[in-house]
Amino acid sequence: MPWSKRLNIGLIFRIIGILLVIEGVFMLTALPFSIYYSDQPFQWAFFDQEHDFWPLLISAFFTAGMGGLLYIIAGRNVKKNLGKREGYIIVSLAWIIISLFGAIPFILSGAISNYTDAFFETISGFTTTGATILNDIESVSKGLLFWRSMTHWIGGMGIIVLSLAILPFLGIGGMQLFMAEVPGPTPDKLHPRITATAKRLWGIYVILTIVQTGLLMLGGMNLFDGLCHAFGTMATGGFSTKNASIAGFSPYIQYVITIFMILAGTNFTLHYLALHGKLKDIWKNEEYRYYMSAIFIATVIITLSLTFSTDSNLEKGFRDSIFTVVSIITTTGFVTADYLFWPGALWFIIFLLMFVGGSAGSTGGGIKVVRQLLLFKNSFLELKRLVHPHAVLPVRLNKRPVSQDIIFNILAFFLIYIIIFAFGTLVMSLMGLDFETAIGATAATIGNIGPGIGNVGPVDNYAEIPLFGKWFLSFLMLLGRLELFTVLILFSPAFWKR
Amino acid sequence: MPWSKRLNIGLIFRIIGILLVIEGVFMLTALPFSIYYSDQPFQWAFFDQEHDFWPLLISAFFTAGMGGLLYIIAGRNVKKNLGKREGYIIVSLAWIIISLFGAIPFILSGAISNYTDAFFETISGFTTTGATILNDIESVSKGLLFWRSMTHWIGGMGIIVLSLAILPFLGIGGMQLFMAEVPGPTPDKLHPRITATAKRLWGIYVILTIVQTGLLMLGGMNLFDGLCHAFGTMATGGFSTKNASIAGFSPYIQYVITIFMILAGTNFTLHYLALHGKLKDIWKNEEYRYYMSAIFIATVIITLSLTFSTDSNLEKGFRDSIFTVVSIITTTGFVTADYLFWPGALWFIIFLLMFVGGSAGSTGGGIKVVRQLLLFKNSFLELKRLVHPHAVLPVRLNKRPVSQDIIFNILAFFLIYIIIFAFGTLVMSLMGLDFETAIGATAATIGNIGPGIGNVGPVDNYAEIPLFGKWFLSFLMLLGRLELFTVLILFSPAFWKR
Repeated sequence: MPWSKRLNIGLIFRIIGILLVIEGVFMLTALPFSIYYSDQPFQWAFFDQEHDFWPLLISAFFTAGMGGLLYIIAGRNVKKNLGKREGYIIVSLAWIIISLFGAIPFILSGAISNYTDAFFETISGFTTTGATILNDIESVSKGLLFWRSMTHWIGGMGIIVLSLAILPFLGIGGMQLFMAEVPGPTPDKLHPRITATAKRLWGIYVILTIVQTGLLMLGGMNLFDGLCHAFGTMATGGFSTKNASIAGFSPYIQYVITIFMILAGTNFTLHYLALHGKLKDIWKNEEYRYYMSAIFIATVIITLSLTFSTDSNLEKGFRDSIFTVVSIITTTGFVTADYLFWPGALWFIIFLLMFVGGSAGSTGGGIKVVRQLLLFKNSFLELKRLVHPHAVLPVRLNKRPVSQDIIFNILAFFLIYIIIFAFGTLVMSLMGLDFETAIGATAATIGNIGPGIGNVGPVDNYAEIPLFGKWFLSFLMLLGRLELFTVLILFSPAFWKR
Repeated sequence: MPWSKRLNIGLIFRIIGILLVIEGVFMLTALPFSIYYSDQPFQWAFFDQEHDFWPLLISAFFTAGMGGLLYIIAGRNVKKNLGKREGYIIVSLAWIIISLFGAIPFILSGAISNYTDAFFETISGFTTTGATILNDIESVSKGLLFWRSMTHWIGGMGIIVLSLAILPFLGIGGMQLFMAEVPGPTPDKLHPRITATAKRLWGIYVILTIVQTGLLMLGGMNLFDGLCHAFGTMATGGFSTKNASIAGFSPYIQYVITIFMILAGTNFTLHYLALHGKLKDIWKNEEYRYYMSAIFIATVIITLSLTFSTDSNLEKGFRDSIFTVVSIITTTGFVTADYLFWPGALWFIIFLLMFVGGSAGSTGGGIKVVRQLLLFKNSFLELKRLVHPHAVLPVRLNKRPVSQDIIFNILAFFLIYIIIFAFGTLVMSLMGLDFETAIGATAATIGNIGPGIGNVGPVDNYAEIPLFGKWFLSFLMLLGRLELFTVLILFSPAFWKR
């Protein structure tokens, strides 16, 4: 991909314009729920939590309209040359702009009283973090809650990947956009053509979402709750429609969500292989084995500890353990138990799991399993290299050698992740948060998890974070979702030099 | 250096034997103080805290005697081929063994009632950590306290570097031993011959210690306190002879110690340059600039915050700030103020400083300044590499390019450091310590600092840590002092393969 000498601003406007139109269309999907759940759905009322039809409709038209305007401003004769620079700018900018617009329905309806909170809630949705500022979720009208869960679903697989799938003309240079939005260290392509890959990814995503919704409805959920929770699961988001998150639902529902969180945190290439019957190849995949082993080991340890240390029976202990472990590892953030009341060492394990993250090519965030696997392998090899300094010892993944450049990049990624984590904790401390809350809020937002530790634990929320802190955490969510480099590169002077 | 096919066990025995003899001789240096400070110095009394002459003398002879025995067992015809393997084994083993023997006087005299605590105190001394289990330091007899401070001084510049300096026959293969005990990423050699380098390092060390002792005595300290505190400073150790550490001494003493902590945390190559009048070269040294800038910035921030947020006047605020910042950055661990009572964000800054460490080639521990400097530079370059993927962009230090292998090794070092830190915190949590204590004890021991946060803060000690926890933290101190790889390599299967 070429490095453009001159920024193609026309194209940036055009693509962001298109994305806003798509966003506006998605807002409209909340209207049926708005109408169904309201006595007088079409009553004209702004800043009134009971009625969200007009706020949603007007936000949708406004968003799509602004998108159209951008598209028109870009002009007819936009050059189609999409360079690396445009790729990074479009993706970072797009995620900020769709969050800015996505917050409007919450403000117009009065469900959230200030724009900072509305923006925090929306970017938390799009980045699939699931950190909420709502004290009483159940008091918010259904149309808005549907839009809130929809932000998860759009963000999970990525709005740019979606637009690549449905708008074939973006195929030119689309690889660059894809790489910037799905940056993982080993982006498997399901098809040499990027639009075909995007189609298959979204296809699997839609199918799994529909199947999960069906299974949730079999367990007694209505369509609204089923869809919202399927969105939250498949996107590894974590917004629920209930104040108690998943704690109030039946064990059946909890197990269904557990299984689909595991699926959502799995590399989607493996789902594609599974659909084509190549089950053998899946278990051969080292990342998948590491991912499943991490879930297994953590679950066994926590189940045993909970069963021995508390009164809960084995089934309940197992269910809470596997649910929490999977929810944190996949960076979903759904809650069935308050892990802060578990023995100290257990919640420290939960805290450590916040740094695991889902698989590459999944909707999960965090550092990601494959990076850790490669880092561990490299650490062992580094000791071997000390013994044999002249031997060439490449790290291998699935029996193939991984280039030094990739390992180097992952090491740098890990380092920058830890630096931002430390810096973020410092910033939150400076705002007066206590140590555990500061460390928890930072880990939970940069990892796109949602619930942290301290005062932002599983049964608390982010309402009490100071104003600036909310903007800062929003930035961390964006950094985490786009895996640091896509955003950070914009701060590099070299990026802006001709 | 060759990789030996067959382990040269005879040589390992011999060298460790020599080190034990040296240790025994050093123990004797405590006797004058034992005699001077006791009414009936030669009274025969074991397990009696008042009288430490015989315990010290017997420990000294026992240690030296065992060393002689090892030397004799090794036999006369020991081959002189010292390979890499022997180097790593000797250094790791030597540090464990001198700690095992160094603990004997504390037990024989009854000053410490169990061997775990005595070993913890001794390895904490040798590794220049300065974490203590003593609840009442001032009740311990002076001879023992002198030996306790002496362990710092021996460990600071390294017992193996010392033996290289005084025993020229170790010159064969001595480079390997030197590299294993002073592993830093850029071990500047002061002279092509390793024995000459070792001599110069110890020479500077002795001179600075004498000068500091003199300056402390000018401030009113007696010879005993002056020497003990100079040992603790120059080794970046942190054991004091007072319960209140440095808090009870005059501002003059506190400033002297601050300045010498800064000197102790500076690359000793720079002292050598300074002694030869090359002052210009010092300020050109990037590591030194980074080190001094870190101290300056942290001091300014904390001074201003303390002055505004508390009642303390500017001078007191500045003195406490610079003392604490320098004490933590250099990994010394002397205390003049309880930073846990500072505002939350300030002690989080202190906690972050625990990961800075002294300069390479200094007696300071931790991650070390030069590693961080190179890591930061590499992170910025990594962003630049994303912009220009085909450009070769080496990290530069003091204008010279640093090889990729070194950067790679440092990245791996950082990763392993963080993994051990996380794992250590988990282990300490499992032993029932609360989050802050677990995280503080781990950071403070692997970084060879001493005081941590939580219940092992600056005015607390490690007496209450469970038995197994003390052994585990001792291991972390050793790992930290030998900069991970020298110890970890012994756990690598490749190391033991022929």
